[in-house]
Amino acid sequence: MNVRKHLARRKALVERELGRILARGTDRIYEAMRHAVFGEGKRFRPLLVLSAAEALGADAALVLPFACGLEFIHTYSLVHDDLPCMDDDDMRRGRPSCHKAFGEDAALLAGDALLTLAFEVMAGAQVPRRLGPVRNQIILEAARRAGVDGMIGGQWLDISYTKDRSEALEELMRKKTGALIILSVRAGALMAGAKKTQLAALTEYGEKIGLAFQLRDDLIDAAETSKKPGLQKPNFTAFAGPEKARRDLIEHVSVACAALKGGRIDSPVLRELAERLLVY
Amino acid sequence: MNVRKHLARRKALVERELGRILARGTDRIYEAMRHAVFGEGKRFRPLLVLSAAEALGADAALVLPFACGLEFIHTYSLVHDDLPCMDDDDMRRGRPSCHKAFGEDAALLAGDALLTLAFEVMAGAQVPRRLGPVRNQIILEAARRAGVDGMIGGQWLDISYTKDRSEALEELMRKKTGALIILSVRAGALMAGAKKTQLAALTEYGEKIGLAFQLRDDLIDAAETSKKPGLQKPNFTAFAGPEKARRDLIEHVSVACAALKGGRIDSPVLRELAERLLVY
Repeated sequence: MNVRKHLARRKALVERELGRILARGTDRIYEAMRHAVFGEGKRFRPLLVLSAAEALGADAALVLPFACGLEFIHTYSLVHDDLPCMDDDDMRRGRPSCHKAFGEDAALLAGDALLTLAFEVMAGAQVPRRLGPVRNQIILEAARRAGVDGMIGGQWLDISYTKDRSEALEELMRKKTGALIILSVRAGALMAGAKKTQLAALTEYGEKIGLAFQLRDDLIDAAETSKKPGLQKPNFTAFAGPEKARRDLIEHVSVACAALKGGRIDSPVLRELAERLLVY
Repeated sequence: MNVRKHLARRKALVERELGRILARGTDRIYEAMRHAVFGEGKRFRPLLVLSAAEALGADAALVLPFACGLEFIHTYSLVHDDLPCMDDDDMRRGRPSCHKAFGEDAALLAGDALLTLAFEVMAGAQVPRRLGPVRNQIILEAARRAGVDGMIGGQWLDISYTKDRSEALEELMRKKTGALIILSVRAGALMAGAKKTQLAALTEYGEKIGLAFQLRDDLIDAAETSKKPGLQKPNFTAFAGPEKARRDLIEHVSVACAALKGGRIDSPVLRELAERLLVY
């Protein structure tokens, strides 16, 4: 298998399905939702959903709704994060942020709509009857990990972060980015009927690449911030130094791949997704 | 049965359960969520969920998670609606609005968290195994009716409303307020195993009291706005005049009660909830 070609095909599958779901409306609010979802996007989370499921022998089609649902949750969090009362970012995914292009009120509602749509798409997923309880478990986990004790809690720590509480930094990383990445891997695994040891291995893989993902983001941000020193966001690189951040990043990716091996999950695709995080 | 006493007891049950769910966190973000949920609230939607279920012989306890979930969805919509980029309201439920008390960023996240919590509470509802598919149907309906083609679509119409598009006013009313009220009645009915005719009757009841609810709100708003003429919001009373609005309100309540009768649903409690809308 050519792993890169496979991932490019899977990304195209995700793009088509996201487009299909968002094509149903023509209002300006739908335009704002499409603006937020499209543009440059790595689709890292949907690829994790699909790859985890396929690593265990399941069909990509079975988990596609969950892949799209998690991308909608991720996108809504970006839209709300970019709002003036939060990070006040003008650009996102290589284009003006949603509120810059459509206004704050439309961006607020488009974010709300994407979050709600995520649950619609997951609850509406056509699955075999016996997988009904698994679908419910994924919806429950999605709500928990995206909620106030997960991703939203991480965003809250992010905005209320003060330098004298730097011990909160790993909690912030785990919640803000990690929660949704773990969820992506687990959603694919659960739908594929993962055995207990497989689910544990994939959960550890998800935890480690979640941390690696945030470190990579921090390294990129720190490099950019050194050019604009005014900005001071919670950042592990700024806190522990770039050498330590790079060492940790490599370590997390390595442990993630070891977890796959330990769980006897032979997936060049999941390894590739982890190793991509080393390049920035 | 003393209907008023019964409803007061059911309201207390809802308050206790909302408090129990929100007691699990101590962070300021949880404080903001509690601030938004408590204060003066009629709990109209949760009472509809419980009353529809009990009218068909089901236990209140079975549907309590859905009652709370729908109240969380309603509350999140108020929190986001009150934000400066939307209606910019300083007061809500007899106290400062969430962003006035906690700041815009906290209010934005508290709203997001309440919406997400709604799905957590519904997906986490303990129901007998045979009712798993019904739970999923309610979650799906909740996402649809609260989403961009329902409540959020109504809020979008509300902010993008212009006087020369007054034919959009009924669509606005149906979506913005109606969607969640219909959902409340249907959630209770579905969990109670409503027969087709019962579900149809209760859905019609929900539709009509949804319209009545919005007309009542408009009549109250119009009376207040006449004191502060600067404000111009989409308002059926302002459009068609208070006499017409009052006649329609009475008509909707009457049709709602007739729908119950037609579906052979003898519920003094549901009648009382409809008739309360005549008092303002």
